[in-house]
Amino acid sequence: MDYSKKALEVHEAHKGKISVVSKIGVTNKDELSIAYTPGVAEPCRKIAENKEDVYKYTSKGNLVAVVSDGTAVLGLGDIGPEAALPVMEGKAVLFKAFAGVDAFPICVDTKNVDEIVDLVKKLAPTFGGINLEDISAPRCIEIEKRLKEELDIPVFHDDQHGTAIVVVAGLINALKLVNKKWEDIRIAVNGPGAAGSAIVKMLLNMNAKEILVCDRHGILEEGGSNPVKEELVKITNPNNEKGTLVDALKGADVFIGVSSPNVVTKEMVASMNKDAIVFAMANPIPEIMPALAIEAGARVVGSGRSDFANQINNVLAFPGIFKGALAVRATDINEAMKVAAANAIAEIIDESELNEEYIIPKPFDERIVETVANAVAKAAKDTGIAKL
Amino acid sequence: MDYSKKALEVHEAHKGKISVVSKIGVTNKDELSIAYTPGVAEPCRKIAENKEDVYKYTSKGNLVAVVSDGTAVLGLGDIGPEAALPVMEGKAVLFKAFAGVDAFPICVDTKNVDEIVDLVKKLAPTFGGINLEDISAPRCIEIEKRLKEELDIPVFHDDQHGTAIVVVAGLINALKLVNKKWEDIRIAVNGPGAAGSAIVKMLLNMNAKEILVCDRHGILEEGGSNPVKEELVKITNPNNEKGTLVDALKGADVFIGVSSPNVVTKEMVASMNKDAIVFAMANPIPEIMPALAIEAGARVVGSGRSDFANQINNVLAFPGIFKGALAVRATDINEAMKVAAANAIAEIIDESELNEEYIIPKPFDERIVETVANAVAKAAKDTGIAKL
Repeated sequence: MDYSKKALEVHEAHKGKISVVSKIGVTNKDELSIAYTPGVAEPCRKIAENKEDVYKYTSKGNLVAVVSDGTAVLGLGDIGPEAALPVMEGKAVLFKAFAGVDAFPICVDTKNVDEIVDLVKKLAPTFGGINLEDISAPRCIEIEKRLKEELDIPVFHDDQHGTAIVVVAGLINALKLVNKKWEDIRIAVNGPGAAGSAIVKMLLNMNAKEILVCDRHGILEEGGSNPVKEELVKITNPNNEKGTLVDALKGADVFIGVSSPNVVTKEMVASMNKDAIVFAMANPIPEIMPALAIEAGARVVGSGRSDFANQINNVLAFPGIFKGALAVRATDINEAMKVAAANAIAEIIDESELNEEYIIPKPFDERIVETVANAVAKAAKDTGIAKL
Repeated sequence: MDYSKKALEVHEAHKGKISVVSKIGVTNKDELSIAYTPGVAEPCRKIAENKEDVYKYTSKGNLVAVVSDGTAVLGLGDIGPEAALPVMEGKAVLFKAFAGVDAFPICVDTKNVDEIVDLVKKLAPTFGGINLEDISAPRCIEIEKRLKEELDIPVFHDDQHGTAIVVVAGLINALKLVNKKWEDIRIAVNGPGAAGSAIVKMLLNMNAKEILVCDRHGILEEGGSNPVKEELVKITNPNNEKGTLVDALKGADVFIGVSSPNVVTKEMVASMNKDAIVFAMANPIPEIMPALAIEAGARVVGSGRSDFANQINNVLAFPGIFKGALAVRATDINEAMKVAAANAIAEIIDESELNEEYIIPKPFDERIVETVANAVAKAAKDTGIAKL
């Protein structure tokens, strides 16, 4: 199917994808007097007396803002808040379709970090959670960090953590398949952006020891000006290796690409360790096409695409994560909740079903959201950040 | 019915009143690829090329933000953004139920005029119109004025203009009934707040000449510090009268109350001109109870309540006004559009049906929204501010 053409038709026919509807009827005087004045004054009074009652009498508790400034939209770059709207509406549609969570696009007309943080904080009374989306690095990392510190509702930058969670879920199962342990493997990550940075941190949380992160110049070295890269240098590359991506891949057990099309060759994959795992997630053209990677000797290959096996797709994570966090009114989405989500996604696939082309569940697997939500809710409770 | 009790039950049972739903299905891989990646990139590209295409491919064109800071909520006062949410959700419900317009509550955690103006401007890419609600005077007037100047989408403070439009609609019909002309009548307005100020300006637009505005101290005089009152002093009271509300009502043809319960006595109504018109809109207790006003000799009496005849209810105006403005992509809601709305509401009632207890249509009269929307759209075109 030509998705581009069909997408234009569908978006135009429906004038966008989201609609705000009433959960109650307003067809007569009594219903009007309950939904609005004079009846509505009573829930207002209750909330004025006890602010937490906002969760009892309004939609806040199941409502997520999908916030973007339009600076890093898909592969299209800085296209502005208006042009970002179709993606944010799409995200809202997925929240509803997959998890029954209400989500609303907030595309903001500023790129200033302080202003975005300030604006989201002022909007927070209306929302039960904040999903940051398609904000360029390193700004997105700073924005998320500050909002997490300053708000008492969950804040989650999906491009970072959603991706990291699904990558880790896939790796958990891939490592089972090749019978390797986190602490023994060498991992090469290409692309030290928002996603790459979050992936690296989560890999370390999983007990990975040897991680090499590359940008277009090769293995990251100290002395740059990008704070995200500087932080990555400090926490990776334990043997202080120098070189290019070619060098990083030599002997690696895992390649994780969140970078650019066609930057990995067959020869580079062939230089990896036995039973190599390749996640080539540049979209729509991967770092190496899956078929080529297999030809070169990789055993497990994943990508961002739905037309190949093992699609690393954020939709496996964010709906259940927010559903679980909102269900127990978590005040944050912390590391324990992310690891719980990754484990839950991985465990959907029984070891008897696990194989090279099925290390990660399909997006429409109906077990995913509940499983992830329950695991995330439990992790929130276990770590003491659940209000319910 | 005990609306307070029932409202609490209904609000708790449904956890608020609004939900965000998808206009398209997402139940398989193809639909997912159209609603989200990769298909969604194409509408994004189109909008990036031509910003106006945001109206073609997104929900913006039918989407209104209901913005409040929670400082003047119903009769409850400054109860904060969380406690204001039930009202703003209710407003969103009415937008949808009456006009098919999508509306979303934005309750902001700041009372600072500059910050609210700034925040709404930064949110504007997502919305086709801005409805300001329950923001205390005189801040609401300043906020609306600045947003109208700085945004190219319609901005409308319903507490001001919605009320003014419905009051004028009622007066148009009441004056027909008593056979008086705008230019001949004496009008006393009690309550120089946001609504009172907007009512006065619209009355002047209707060609009313003799308007006296009172606050709790009596007829407004020069020399105060409130800029709204200062402006009203300049444009009203042509004979420079001094005195109390008692004096203002002597010989008046029309009383308009947007003030406090029970501030008008039978004697005061009895002192009005023959065929007096009394709109006592303080809520829930009017300035004078309708039965008392009739006993005192008033011919036409309206109030804000649904349990008396002639309810002056904003719901007659705002749904059709936004529907009409959005339909032609008006860049503002100007005076011509407001007068057109008032005339349209008044004309719903045929002269043969018009009587003392039926000067204004009922909220659920199905003719209203289309009639108002068409009139408003035409006025926008006639005044050159419609983009379609």
